[in-house]
Order: sequence, then C-alpha cells, then structure tokens
Amino acid sequence: MIEDKNQQRTQLSDLGEFGLIDHLTKNFKVKHKSTIKSIGDDAAVLNFDNKKIVVTTDLLLEGVHFDLSYMPLKHLGYKAVIVNLSDVYAMNAKATQITVSIAVSNRFPLEALEDLYAGIETAADIYDIDVIGGDTTSSNKGLLISVTAIGEVESENEVYRSGAKPNDLLVVSGDLGAAYMGLQVLEREKEVYKVNPNSQPDLEPYTYIIERQLKPEARKDIVKLLSELGVKPSSMIDISDGLSSEIIHICKQSKVGCDLYEEKIPLDPQVISTCEEFNIDSTTVALNGGEDYELLFTISQDDFLKIKANPSLSVIGYIKEEKEGIHLITRADTKIPVKAQGWKNFND
Amino acid sequence: MIEDKNQQRTQLSDLGEFGLIDHLTKNFKVKHKSTIKSIGDDAAVLNFDNKKIVVTTDLLLEGVHFDLSYMPLKHLGYKAVIVNLSDVYAMNAKATQITVSIAVSNRFPLEALEDLYAGIETAADIYDIDVIGGDTTSSNKGLLISVTAIGEVESENEVYRSGAKPNDLLVVSGDLGAAYMGLQVLEREKEVYKVNPNSQPDLEPYTYIIERQLKPEARKDIVKLLSELGVKPSSMIDISDGLSSEIIHICKQSKVGCDLYEEKIPLDPQVISTCEEFNIDSTTVALNGGEDYELLFTISQDDFLKIKANPSLSVIGYIKEEKEGIHLITRADTKIPVKAQGWKNFND
Repeated sequence: MIEDKNQQRTQLSDLGEFGLIDHLTKNFKVKHKSTIKSIGDDAAVLNFDNKKIVVTTDLLLEGVHFDLSYMPLKHLGYKAVIVNLSDVYAMNAKATQITVSIAVSNRFPLEALEDLYAGIETAADIYDIDVIGGDTTSSNKGLLISVTAIGEVESENEVYRSGAKPNDLLVVSGDLGAAYMGLQVLEREKEVYKVNPNSQPDLEPYTYIIERQLKPEARKDIVKLLSELGVKPSSMIDISDGLSSEIIHICKQSKVGCDLYEEKIPLDPQVISTCEEFNIDSTTVALNGGEDYELLFTISQDDFLKIKANPSLSVIGYIKEEKEGIHLITRADTKIPVKAQGWKNFND
Repeated sequence: MIEDKNQQRTQLSDLGEFGLIDHLTKNFKVKHKSTIKSIGDDAAVLNFDNKKIVVTTDLLLEGVHFDLSYMPLKHLGYKAVIVNLSDVYAMNAKATQITVSIAVSNRFPLEALEDLYAGIETAADIYDIDVIGGDTTSSNKGLLISVTAIGEVESENEVYRSGAKPNDLLVVSGDLGAAYMGLQVLEREKEVYKVNPNSQPDLEPYTYIIERQLKPEARKDIVKLLSELGVKPSSMIDISDGLSSEIIHICKQSKVGCDLYEEKIPLDPQVISTCEEFNIDSTTVALNGGEDYELLFTISQDDFLKIKANPSLSVIGYIKEEKEGIHLITRADTKIPVKAQGWKNFND
C-alpha cells in the first residue's frame, strides 16, 4: 500500500524544464505514419489524409480523482491514458496520439515522475499510441495530469451519442460496478492502515475489482470486434460516470426512451460478493459506480444475431419512444425511472 | 486591483457538471467547416481534408503562472487561449480549434467562471477559433486551466524550429520585455496595497507594459503578413520564455550558431523608462523576461527586401555556422555567449 520512502530522490530542479521533458520522453517511439512531428517544437504536426479526427481531453487531480496512498504512480500514468482512449473508442475511432501535461509539486522526486511516465509509456505501447507533446510545470500542491487524446476514423464510421432509434437494442461490453467496489475496498484498507500500520491486508478475494480500479482497460478490442462483425452501432458512449448517467446521455441526445432490465446487467462474481460484504445493492453500484470504461451502445435488432454469441457483450435493454421515458425494469418486474447522480465532485 | 466581494455568488454545486459545461459554453458558435462535431459527445470530430494539423497544449496554474490578486478572470481566460494560439502560429499554421479544461475549488462562484469563459469566448471570437471540448472538475485548492490548441496548415507550409541556415537573418516581431516589466509593476503595487489598502496606484505610465502582461496578443497577423509578402521563414518559434531561450532552441535544433545584436533588440519606450525606474538592464529583460508571445524566425537574405519596410518586424541578428556559437554583440561591440535561464518555476 505504501511507497518505499528510501528510494533514490533526484530533485526536479536539477534538470530544468527542457531536461525533464527530454528525460521523461526519450524512450517514446513514433508508431503512426500520421505523426509527422512529435515532441520538440511549438506544436506537433499530424497528417490524417482524408480521415476525420476525434479529439478529447480529461483532467485528473490528486485528492479529487486519485489518492496516491493506494494508487501507484505507474498505474496512475496508465489510467490517465486509458480514461482518454476510452472516449476515442466511444466514437468508434482508432486512437492514434496523445499529449500529456503534468503539474507536480517539489515533493515528487524525478524517480516518481519516471514511474508515472513508465505507466504512460506502457499504455501507449499496448494501445499503439504516439505521445506527441505536452507541458510540464510545477504546482504549489499535489499532482495533476491533463491528457488530450486524438484518434482517426474513416468518414461516415464515427458514432455519436445521438443516433439511437426506438426498437434498437441497448448493449454493454464487459461487466459493471467493479471499479467502484475496488475503490471501496482500497478506502477501507486505508482506514485500517491508519489505525494499525502493521496490519497486512488480505486483498486476494478482491484482485479483480482492485485491478479494475487501479489499472482499468479501454475497449479498443470492442471497436475492432464490431468492425469485424460488420456491426455499426447507432449510438455509443463510454461508461465513466455510471450506467444511469450514460443511458440518460444517449436517450437525451437521441430523443428516445429506454427500458433497462436489472437482471441483464452484467456483474462479476467478485462485485456481487463484495457488495454483500459491504451491504450495498449491486444494481445501485452498476448504475452509479462509474470508472468502468466499458462501452455502452445501441444496435439495430437486425444485428442481434451477429453479436448474440459474444461473451464480452450483453444486451441489457430496449430503446423506446421518447415519451415512454427511461426506466429500470427490476427483477420484481416493477418499473423505476432511471436518474443521474449528478456531479459528485462538487458536492463533497 | 481587487475583486468586488459583494458580487452575486451562485454555488457551482447548484449546477452539477453537465449543467455547468452547458451553461458556460452555450454561447460558443462553431465557425469552421473543419469542426464536424463540437462539445457534447465523448470527443469532438474534425475534418481537415488534405491539410496537416498541428496540436499544442499548455497548463496555467494559479500561484505559479498567474496571481488572481491582479489578474482579472476575464483576462486570464483570454490569456490562456493566446498562450496556446501563439504556439500554433509559430508553426506558420492557422489556429482553428481549442479544448479548454478547468479545475476550480469551491471558493469560486459560478459568476467567476462566467468571467473566465467570457475571456475565452472573446479570444475565440477575435482569433476565429472554435471551442470544441474540455473537462470541468473541482480542485482542492486554486484554479487551473489546461488548453489544447489545434490548427491547420497546407502541406509543406509548416515551419519548424530546425530549419535555420547559416547567413539567414534572425527576425523578431513587435517588441520585447514589456510583459515582464508589467509584472514587476503589478507585483510592486500588490506589496504597496498590502501595506496600505487605501493607496490608489497611478498606473498611467505603465498602461502598455501592464496590458502586455495581463492581456497579451498572439501574432496571427504576422503569419498572415508573411504569407502575403511571399516569405516562408526557414525556422520559427514563439517567445514565451525569453529571447535567449528561444534563440538557443532554434540554434540547437537547426545545428547553427548566431550573432544577436543588442542595439537591434526592439524595446518599447515604457520598457526602457520602467527598467530605469527599477534599475534593471533592459537587454537582460528582453533576453530573459518571457511571456512576450512575439514570433522569432529566420529568413533567407534573399527575402530581406520583402520585410525591410515593415514596422512590426526587426532584424536582430545573423545565423552563423554551429561552431561559431551563439553570441550577443553588445553596444560596446563585445561578444558575450547567450545562455538560457533554465526553468524558473522549479527553482522558486
């Protein structure tokens, strides 16, 4: 849980800004033909020929989005990339480049930033992304990461939130709620550690849900799979804030309603057992937990047979006319309106 | 100098994240054909046909890059955009889109963010830019702005830092050192105000240098001018860290040396008089002050007649062979090696 405090410490001021950027990015290789000029000038230069490009950006702040007492810096670097790639995949696009800006206080030695960038580099390698630029500055307090991701998509292949039609099927990849329950376990262990720093937590029963929190993946594979299956979703969004919030986005922007079936929501056994242990309703966790980075999309019923057999995809509902509203059909067959949780950060 | 503390205060938590983004960006109009889809989906979608695109990003942090005790939020929003556009122009490109991410603590009411976005909108209007996305989150402390700017450039028109050749002329737009001296005046008035809050500062003799600090402009006009004059610079960079640092970037990346003539460095009379008042050497200020956002570029001597008569452009030196080094030729005709100041932020 805890960083090794005796590690080597090189002061950031020993390098200067340009030395720091050079040092941290020296291993980054350019992989894409579309990256004409990467780090090292006033701006990167890209060339996508006739393809459309997609651009998305996210901020991650220490104390708001992550807690370094249980988030290793390497994982944090990895996750900061994933969170942004997930938005690119949600456009049915191929992620190609990112910029990474960081602000750090002097409490971080160079070795900490090397860990952070090792995570960024690992994600860039696994997801085949060029790191093309960024900014590095000091902060008065804490660590902040701002990533902008760029992707390419053949014209007419991009998928918006706004294309869902009545009678379409609502489909989700993977399973939901695990990242949130992983966070609950980590928060609990942090409290235990505060009381007794010698306690050794047994995290074995929670490996999957903790990994989902600390090292999530983005569903590049699903975009590829849908393309191979010949399925173009009518709408798509990634699940960062929780299933409820994302369904509402699709329904509002597509001007449709939706019936979501509680019994169809995919849950990992560790989510179910941990929810029981914490005495939390697993459906509530799936609806509002967030940080799953799965893809939620709608397809025409004509495409059902193409996706039916795939274990990574679950049909969880039907798109309805707008006037019918957005409802959860519970296991007890009652209809409950689906509500968004709003913005938790500002209510803390 | 001081904010009106009796202004209307709407708590950010009253709106929630999506309400806040909608509210702040509702006036933003799409101006470019290349902006296919702006704010409102997982990512923006852009289409540049056969043009190359340039991408650059910068972070601005309260307490590091700006001080809200003398920086009005509207100016800050404006400046955050300008700083990024300047990098796009330094590639000889046309700036077309930006994303804007902000992190704010609860001490800021909605009205403060409206001021910030009013400045962003003003810059976007004046510089003809689409605001296509961003992220809005809470911070534990202070205000942070992360902007990514995107521009387009016809293939083969982009200008890198690396193209300067021996015998090229070194040219700078506008004048240098004003933003730094404006900051010195503002810092002094802040100290005076702390001692005597009833003192009324007379800032009349400093209007130009204060405006250069609080509301800088990016040299879109110079890129247009060079195009009209039929001059393609062999290398270009914007002056954000000071003339010394930028000359060294061009020389290192172009593998050349340079003679810079002290007497040719363009200084505004207010910079000269304020330097005398503060007993600071004006050449030192121009070399190391930073935040001028002028363009520094090199051109072939064949192009000299095309730019000669232009009052916005000053020839300040000659590119030499790499082995001859980078020197300042002083008014007393002595040769001094040009050195970079390094990264001030981490040395505070």
